[in-house]
Amino acid sequence: MANIFGKLYQISTFGESHGGGVGVVIDGCPPGIEISEEIIQKDLDRRRPGQSEIVTPRNEADACEILSGVHEGKTLGTPIAILVRNKDARPSAYDEMALKYRPSHADYTYDAKFGHRNPNGGGRSSARETIGRVAAAAIAKQVLKQLAPELEVLSWVASIKDLKGTVDPATVSSETIEGNIVRTGDPAMVEPMIELIKATRSDGNSVGGTIETVVRGCPPGLGAPVFDRLEADLAKAMLSLPATKGFEVGSGFSGTLLTGREHNDPFYLENDQIRTRTNNSGGVQGGISNGENILFRVAFKPTATIMTSQETVSSAKEETELKGKGRHDACVLPRAVPIVEAMTYLVVIDHFLRQRAQCGA
Amino acid sequence: MANIFGKLYQISTFGESHGGGVGVVIDGCPPGIEISEEIIQKDLDRRRPGQSEIVTPRNEADACEILSGVHEGKTLGTPIAILVRNKDARPSAYDEMALKYRPSHADYTYDAKFGHRNPNGGGRSSARETIGRVAAAAIAKQVLKQLAPELEVLSWVASIKDLKGTVDPATVSSETIEGNIVRTGDPAMVEPMIELIKATRSDGNSVGGTIETVVRGCPPGLGAPVFDRLEADLAKAMLSLPATKGFEVGSGFSGTLLTGREHNDPFYLENDQIRTRTNNSGGVQGGISNGENILFRVAFKPTATIMTSQETVSSAKEETELKGKGRHDACVLPRAVPIVEAMTYLVVIDHFLRQRAQCGA
Amino acid sequence: MANIFGKLYQISTFGESHGGGVGVVIDGCPPGIEISEEIIQKDLDRRRPGQSEIVTPRNEADACEILSGVHEGKTLGTPIAILVRNKDARPSAYDEMALKYRPSHADYTYDAKFGHRNPNGGGRSSARETIGRVAAAAIAKQVLKQLAPELEVLSWVASIKDLKGTVDPATVSSETIEGNIVRTGDPAMVEPMIELIKATRSDGNSVGGTIETVVRGCPPGLGAPVFDRLEADLAKAMLSLPATKGFEVGSGFSGTLLTGREHNDPFYLENDQIRTRTNNSGGVQGGISNGENILFRVAFKPTATIMTSQETVSSAKEETELKGKGRHDACVLPRAVPIVEAMTYLVVIDHFLRQRAQCGA
Amino acid sequence: MANIFGKLYQISTFGESHGGGVGVVIDGCPPGIEISEEIIQKDLDRRRPGQSEIVTPRNEADACEILSGVHEGKTLGTPIAILVRNKDARPSAYDEMALKYRPSHADYTYDAKFGHRNPNGGGRSSARETIGRVAAAAIAKQVLKQLAPELEVLSWVASIKDLKGTVDPATVSSETIEGNIVRTGDPAMVEPMIELIKATRSDGNSVGGTIETVVRGCPPGLGAPVFDRLEADLAKAMLSLPATKGFEVGSGFSGTLLTGREHNDPFYLENDQIRTRTNNSGGVQGGISNGENILFRVAFKPTATIMTSQETVSSAKEETELKGKGRHDACVLPRAVPIVEAMTYLVVIDHFLRQRAQCGA
Repeated sequence: MANIFGKLYQISTFGESHGGGVGVVIDGCPPGIEISEEIIQKDLDRRRPGQSEIVTPRNEADACEILSGVHEGKTLGTPIAILVRNKDARPSAYDEMALKYRPSHADYTYDAKFGHRNPNGGGRSSARETIGRVAAAAIAKQVLKQLAPELEVLSWVASIKDLKGTVDPATVSSETIEGNIVRTGDPAMVEPMIELIKATRSDGNSVGGTIETVVRGCPPGLGAPVFDRLEADLAKAMLSLPATKGFEVGSGFSGTLLTGREHNDPFYLENDQIRTRTNNSGGVQGGISNGENILFRVAFKPTATIMTSQETVSSAKEETELKGKGRHDACVLPRAVPIVEAMTYLVVIDHFLRQRAQCGA
Repeated sequence: MANIFGKLYQISTFGESHGGGVGVVIDGCPPGIEISEEIIQKDLDRRRPGQSEIVTPRNEADACEILSGVHEGKTLGTPIAILVRNKDARPSAYDEMALKYRPSHADYTYDAKFGHRNPNGGGRSSARETIGRVAAAAIAKQVLKQLAPELEVLSWVASIKDLKGTVDPATVSSETIEGNIVRTGDPAMVEPMIELIKATRSDGNSVGGTIETVVRGCPPGLGAPVFDRLEADLAKAMLSLPATKGFEVGSGFSGTLLTGREHNDPFYLENDQIRTRTNNSGGVQGGISNGENILFRVAFKPTATIMTSQETVSSAKEETELKGKGRHDACVLPRAVPIVEAMTYLVVIDHFLRQRAQCGA
Repeated sequence: MANIFGKLYQISTFGESHGGGVGVVIDGCPPGIEISEEIIQKDLDRRRPGQSEIVTPRNEADACEILSGVHEGKTLGTPIAILVRNKDARPSAYDEMALKYRPSHADYTYDAKFGHRNPNGGGRSSARETIGRVAAAAIAKQVLKQLAPELEVLSWVASIKDLKGTVDPATVSSETIEGNIVRTGDPAMVEPMIELIKATRSDGNSVGGTIETVVRGCPPGLGAPVFDRLEADLAKAMLSLPATKGFEVGSGFSGTLLTGREHNDPFYLENDQIRTRTNNSGGVQGGISNGENILFRVAFKPTATIMTSQETVSSAKEETELKGKGRHDACVLPRAVPIVEAMTYLVVIDHFLRQRAQCGA
Repeated sequence: MANIFGKLYQISTFGESHGGGVGVVIDGCPPGIEISEEIIQKDLDRRRPGQSEIVTPRNEADACEILSGVHEGKTLGTPIAILVRNKDARPSAYDEMALKYRPSHADYTYDAKFGHRNPNGGGRSSARETIGRVAAAAIAKQVLKQLAPELEVLSWVASIKDLKGTVDPATVSSETIEGNIVRTGDPAMVEPMIELIKATRSDGNSVGGTIETVVRGCPPGLGAPVFDRLEADLAKAMLSLPATKGFEVGSGFSGTLLTGREHNDPFYLENDQIRTRTNNSGGVQGGISNGENILFRVAFKPTATIMTSQETVSSAKEETELKGKGRHDACVLPRAVPIVEAMTYLVVIDHFLRQRAQCGA
């Protein structure tokens, strides 16, 4: 229940940071779709540690194995299980953390909920859990390539701390984003952002920021009027990621400063297609896609694990201090970009199949 | 599926703005809980139109009838169905709207999804749909009063357009909020906000704003590590409300401007209880409540229906103009306060029962 | 959860035998389907008491009201809520039953589970709960009439106690079944069965029997390989009906007496279509329909409420005796026929929409 | 969806007969429960091929690996993933079967549903899929040992073809059942049943039979009044197993031959506990356990794969003949016993947790 996402393209992730491995089971995947393992691996490589000089040096190959559900390169329509082994485990780095609660991390609340926890690498709260999501989305992407060939999801780092780029969601390209290690969409911000991350890391500190996403070519009609609004499911998907603190679609929080007259998106016709002149709605109206670009932003707080001594409490309920150890990102945003894309694909494919079920197309 | 919310305290809402009525079926309610119909009716009255001079004059009594699931004043553990009849229907006000798509409303996307729609009063996109949610939450509130007596949810209008109040979530009271027709938590903002809403309405325009919520007395341990994080379910709940564009928990978007050293919430002991010195986490860490106040904000865009002529397109695909008619709120926030509270109660009770199922308490 | 059935055509029933009413909310119904209220009412009339001389004289009109989800005679794609008011309530008939547990009825187990219950008319265990199912299925039938026009579900009374008819599932007609008040498919058994029911009622006793069902014209491909096998969902649907004790598909229990050589259904070609020479499989192989007639039987025990004094225990935990009162069926099977059909339609439409979602057709 | 079972103790199985492996992910397992891998392995060994002279000689060690969710021997409350590698693959044995549909097997319907299939070993329809169920149930058994120590599930072979044993469900022991390779509960039937299976195999034929199950020590109150009746969920669980054709609880189909007066189970008091004098109800009344032994029977058809030439059709739609190859069971019942037990444990633990969620105990 709590580890299952989606209603028709349903994924079930498993695995702790340390242990046999992490992975996912996908249930409900359409049959007969050609699947390339390289595409899965490429997306896993985009999220893995050690990929550049500004992310954690923890070096894990994250090689994925498809255990089931694919035969002669095509989906069978049966569950697709994908496993990535854990390799670079260094439990000793976590000895102190087993006894002391890291501030703003999940250590204390896991104990409060479950009565005990796997302290190594944060257990289930580790970013490694997202491997299953990325792998499942890499398959969703290949399914959608056949079912909705126009559809494309792109995410990029919009800001790191107070450094904010300028990006046109209608034209930004994968080449631009993947062409820099920060994965920002504004080439002018690459160097300043890299400098900020390096300086932050040298200081044993951390920074957060925002990631922006566009879904281009989404057909109108995806979503639902009430609880399963497209933006509601996107909000849940994004807030289910570690370190997220906020979500906004279209005009978002700044839209509250406009009047209705300024905010409304007038309809017009373009080649007999209904379009809107502005897109404050962010591509979603009444919970349902309107064919315009879907646009949203996600806020990531600064990483909790920092290399400075902090006031805290031990699991034995004694006040103490804790200084972070191990290998951690001073800024998770570059690695979060493929994860945000992944969650977007998972929401979109689910609503695509739901639309096909209820409305036949 | 799309009209069902919650996993253990599961509500299923139904009803369009015009037609036989709106309501809800609650499945999974604990048995043996005393239910007061007055408490339900009181919450329905807080959300109904016509309650004050700054909301739409559409006057509907919204009298609720419990059809099942309660016997001699106590819940049976069987489905509780609640019906509120539609009374003040004026379909004629919608004649023009049946033919022309209101900008930034759900008219066009409903047609795009379903092939047709009930144009009267917006059909399922009407705020009347939230009656079922409020009624279901009023029962949830009474259940939680027995199962977690310390727990209390309070929402208030934090801002309208650029008017922003100052409120201490730890001490703000229901009396303060319900003591003014705007439902703001800052008495100093009552008059300016009322003036703004009245001026906006006179101008045939509309405004939006933000609603802030605190959950006080929530036990630690509610939520889940991955997809069903407490904040993820709250985000979905809030974005499932009409006119919402954003959600943030704790430090939210502004937290992205801090460093980890500034943002982390140090743990300390207070009377042998684990507490945090600051609350940038907003009461949730690793997706699970930590016992501090849960704090979040929701952005509402300005109401789409305005009394000015706007460029649009007809369902016959012709460019045209449309001027709003009927009785609408120039600002939905005062009436949205009890709805935001309702969705919060629904998320909390669901996770409370889930915690009891999995962890036994 | 416990009162919701189906995954894509999802119904949520509510209501006790006595109280405001009973009904159903249907979520996920395809939009744009013409709905006739008469068809719903006709199916409700087939299950209602008082319809003939061999069923309980409790006379309830069971008039249904569609509260939402249908506009100008067509489904909107939004929830369809249907309400049937309770009218002929005689709670006084249940005074003694409120204090004493009726043997083989749900009184004791409801108390054991929920701590209390609504003793009037059996509360939620009343056959009135099935009204919501029948109404939801009457709509499903109309949807399927458009999506799979060849598909037809027919149920009939196959046996009452040791009286067993002979029926050819391939040719039996609705006219034959509805043409007699027992709803048996074998005209020769009508009189003997009526005599048996009348004699049983005169004796203050009750009898059970079996109902057989055929689904004709079901397209191949409905169902799933593992948990949601078509026969598994049918079994659950049937055992979810009051008074049922068994389910068998195709050769069923008697198939265990054959060898594989006798039991296997050889494939052959008929007009380029793959057919089987025999149908021991009952139209389902590997959990998935194969295009042959789907065939199954359901066992109904004799009604628990009898007009004879029986040994029992009171809710105050004292040994006592109880003699049934009120108006009850001496044999529920004639009225159960439309209910078994209804559950079949609900399973079939759900798998039809699931097939469309996953496999596109 | 189709490969997920349970609502609170939710299992997701994956894997084909040939490929990387088969397994399961368990979501919702209570935390802090000591888990013994040996108990899991022992149950897997009970279902594996090659365990005795009357089952298929296919020799697979079926060694399980727990990938996640258990730390220092205790459940974490996070997903428990279990993997069993496929080892003894002989795809060549299936060359002919890839082209011709085996009668009464899933080959044709898989093609009809998904458009293609994995022909090796039957793919997802292989009995190997049940490995995940058995492993998940072995953990459920250990959880229940702590939460409901009195509770015990026992299944045994009640009949093979027309050989039927006599067993007292109240006293039959695991030692008796596991003490013979047929897993019958009646020692007198061991030799005749072994002889029948051997003779059948020599003849290249197959036989079916019935398995009976008792749940002893089940607390009253498990189940639900309507769709999720305990017997409905058991029926679905059993009919979700390969080769099953029927399910009956308590008096079952033979109960339809009794009158109400004979069938009703009178209540009486035993040591202040409410008991029934007879148990035609099979331990379930109104869908809810009443504290008596839960009793049900499942019908298994004779295995479809036989070593005789049979009429069939190829996937190229040509009429042809097919003679079974490979290593198959002439009678699946001895190996099905632990699988039936497993499904029973999965249903019981799910309802146990549901009861704790809704009713607090």
